[in-house]
Amino acid sequence: MTLNERAQLIADEAERNATRLRVHVTKVAGARVIDCGGAVQGSLAAGLLLARACLADAGEVAYVPYPVPEIGGPAVQVTTDDPVRACLASQYAGWQVTAGKFFAMGSGPMRALAAREEIFQHISAKEESPFAVGVLETHKHPTEEVIAAIVAKLPLVAEHLTLLVAPTSSIAGTTQIVARSVETALHKLHELKFDVNQVVSGYGIAPLPPVATDFVQAIGRTNDAILYGAKVVLWVRADDEVIEHIGPKVPSAASKDHGSPFAEVFARYNGDFYKIDPLLFSPAEIEFRNLKTGRCHRFGRSEPNLLRKSFGLGE
Amino acid sequence: MTLNERAQLIADEAERNATRLRVHVTKVAGARVIDCGGAVQGSLAAGLLLARACLADAGEVAYVPYPVPEIGGPAVQVTTDDPVRACLASQYAGWQVTAGKFFAMGSGPMRALAAREEIFQHISAKEESPFAVGVLETHKHPTEEVIAAIVAKLPLVAEHLTLLVAPTSSIAGTTQIVARSVETALHKLHELKFDVNQVVSGYGIAPLPPVATDFVQAIGRTNDAILYGAKVVLWVRADDEVIEHIGPKVPSAASKDHGSPFAEVFARYNGDFYKIDPLLFSPAEIEFRNLKTGRCHRFGRSEPNLLRKSFGLGE
Amino acid sequence: MTLNERAQLIADEAERNATRLRVHVTKVAGARVIDCGGAVQGSLAAGLLLARACLADAGEVAYVPYPVPEIGGPAVQVTTDDPVRACLASQYAGWQVTAGKFFAMGSGPMRALAAREEIFQHISAKEESPFAVGVLETHKHPTEEVIAAIVAKLPLVAEHLTLLVAPTSSIAGTTQIVARSVETALHKLHELKFDVNQVVSGYGIAPLPPVATDFVQAIGRTNDAILYGAKVVLWVRADDEVIEHIGPKVPSAASKDHGSPFAEVFARYNGDFYKIDPLLFSPAEIEFRNLKTGRCHRFGRSEPNLLRKSFGLGE
Repeated sequence: MTLNERAQLIADEAERNATRLRVHVTKVAGARVIDCGGAVQGSLAAGLLLARACLADAGEVAYVPYPVPEIGGPAVQVTTDDPVRACLASQYAGWQVTAGKFFAMGSGPMRALAAREEIFQHISAKEESPFAVGVLETHKHPTEEVIAAIVAKLPLVAEHLTLLVAPTSSIAGTTQIVARSVETALHKLHELKFDVNQVVSGYGIAPLPPVATDFVQAIGRTNDAILYGAKVVLWVRADDEVIEHIGPKVPSAASKDHGSPFAEVFARYNGDFYKIDPLLFSPAEIEFRNLKTGRCHRFGRSEPNLLRKSFGLGE
Repeated sequence: MTLNERAQLIADEAERNATRLRVHVTKVAGARVIDCGGAVQGSLAAGLLLARACLADAGEVAYVPYPVPEIGGPAVQVTTDDPVRACLASQYAGWQVTAGKFFAMGSGPMRALAAREEIFQHISAKEESPFAVGVLETHKHPTEEVIAAIVAKLPLVAEHLTLLVAPTSSIAGTTQIVARSVETALHKLHELKFDVNQVVSGYGIAPLPPVATDFVQAIGRTNDAILYGAKVVLWVRADDEVIEHIGPKVPSAASKDHGSPFAEVFARYNGDFYKIDPLLFSPAEIEFRNLKTGRCHRFGRSEPNLLRKSFGLGE
Repeated sequence: MTLNERAQLIADEAERNATRLRVHVTKVAGARVIDCGGAVQGSLAAGLLLARACLADAGEVAYVPYPVPEIGGPAVQVTTDDPVRACLASQYAGWQVTAGKFFAMGSGPMRALAAREEIFQHISAKEESPFAVGVLETHKHPTEEVIAAIVAKLPLVAEHLTLLVAPTSSIAGTTQIVARSVETALHKLHELKFDVNQVVSGYGIAPLPPVATDFVQAIGRTNDAILYGAKVVLWVRADDEVIEHIGPKVPSAASKDHGSPFAEVFARYNGDFYKIDPLLFSPAEIEFRNLKTGRCHRFGRSEPNLLRKSFGLGE
């Protein structure tokens, strides 16, 4: 099965259980749109499905206790044996969907059908599939114009497209973002010119933050969950020298913008996302387990105090 | 599907796997009775099924590591996106089943068929269903008289009733009780006149205590697991002022009877359960995540030393 | 269903998902051989299947966060309500498979078909089954000679035998070994003349170590995960005096060889496995929950510093 076919099955499951999941299914210009948290309440269970659709079902996602006593509460755990395809070809939000005033970060396996992004030159993940499934992080319901803009880049008709949609400031949206612990590690490694095809499997955990109401707080908390709370383990087959050289640059602590809640960093740059150090976007802690040599390399640290501040738990 | 139909499927699953689960299925006056720990050993797996039947399958239940190092061991984790129906209309042990000398706390979705309790005036959960499923916390097997007493309050015949039965002092009974972390939070909120319909989703965890042999120790440990060990997160849509006002009263620490193992409290009142401060029955820690404002409010604290004493782990 | 039939279903599942699991299925002398990590990469998911096959599916296995902050990372959690059959009749690696220069520790339910080991005199687990499933811990692919040697001890033909194979130094092999937390507790108890039939249920957790490349490091780390990191809870029906007498001898700390990474112990005895104190092989921590008396007995302690050293995480 292709990545998109696997995600299609998850979308079908979401549609079948729409009431229980508190999601809403509509057709827009022929495409199936599953609102998981915009005009609807959504749910913790919808968040898991959304995360699994993002990963094209090439990984497991579960709520588990976050094992840092100062923080507690639930965490989102991800396990994958297909990290490059699950995280980079599918889950990474590399497709900026625009149409008129509409803007959304696009992720999900539809990216592997378009395969226009730079990353696809480095990974073998372009695919053909009878269906396309995408995930949009947005508080606006996609319009016919949005569907047209997406279909224009896909080798299929709108009737074969499914979009799962949720804003950052929703229960399901929050879950799907903090399910990106392994993905942010892989993407940062790619940015640092590490050959991500050397990553064999991945395990990650990040605390599930309280749902925010405004956009800045929402991206603040979800980013902080990753930057200051995510712990990732990667099984790789690489050279220890390369890991030792690149490793210290992987965790968020390597960035000059590390050390403040993300909302403050965002404000510092007057809300210009693209002025923020791109190397900030990575987990708090990363461990490489080198299958080639048996060596283990761990870098970074979680920052419970920053998490408490960001989540509004008191300092 | 109704709550009772969902629980019926779980009861069917228990019957199909009776040997493996170490449960025993009999017919009493036409009703199906599944003993999960009275005359049989029961099991950890039967405990999960019993907890899920109690929740009418409107929540997930799992064993996970209890993330407080001084205690360790397994915990019971509950996640629900239908907290009012799962916990209050079904799981709450609000039906005192009596017949002659027989007494048992009754829970499960059969309560939503009878819908005679005060709570049903505040929640929209009364239902009609072709089946009824109840859970009895008792060490005695229900007699024909017990079945008659239950059926008298239900709009169906005994042949359509299933009872799952386990004493507090059994493996499965212990699990089903400490799966009540979210439920106790909701019930306490209802007692404090908080509109529980504002609770959207819930997550809770409580340590699984050692199985006791005598009744007092059994209710002692299971209550202590909640009072001193349960950590609950609720996603609500409410006013922060109301949360700030009511919140400090929610955790067990707000009760004058907090601070001793429950068995000691029970003895202090000469075993008169109804003299114990009803506000004691609530989780150690509660966090409100307000979807309306994005604010997060946490109250209470776990008490590892009291848990160690209660569980017999040394002080 | 017999233990072997249950394991057969897991092997079938592994074969159906061979690509995704990165396992490879071949026929050797008529027997089905599923390589989970020798000539193939294997996967975290294959590790879970391998562990479940070892347990004859009479237990649950899951990745969860290891709740010791100094170590972190994933742990392997095991829950079983059939501990004697799952762990001793099946999972225990009591069959030393030899053929020419080939040597492998053999486990899985095929042992309950042969039932030649001493342990089977103490437990009621010998079975007849149309299929046999075994697990071999080895880096060599079994030859026709190996299959013949195994089949010679089984009451069936090679065509009805399945072997799942993985070296200690593989992802799946590492998982299946550290899924032995409960098993090592039971086996140690048997060595100490405790009647293991008194063990009703078991729960255990052990950290998943980094995969090693050489054999000594591999058995070092996987043993250390158990000896210094495994925490086991057993529900038993026994006499407290017996537990108090035997209990302190159960955790690894009771052994004179406790206190160094296993690889050092191995080197100290010049690599002669059989000179190592057999009482070393047991979990770091064990808790008995006595169903007969309600008492709880905990012995031993985890050793995070030794785990950090063993796993190469820095001291």
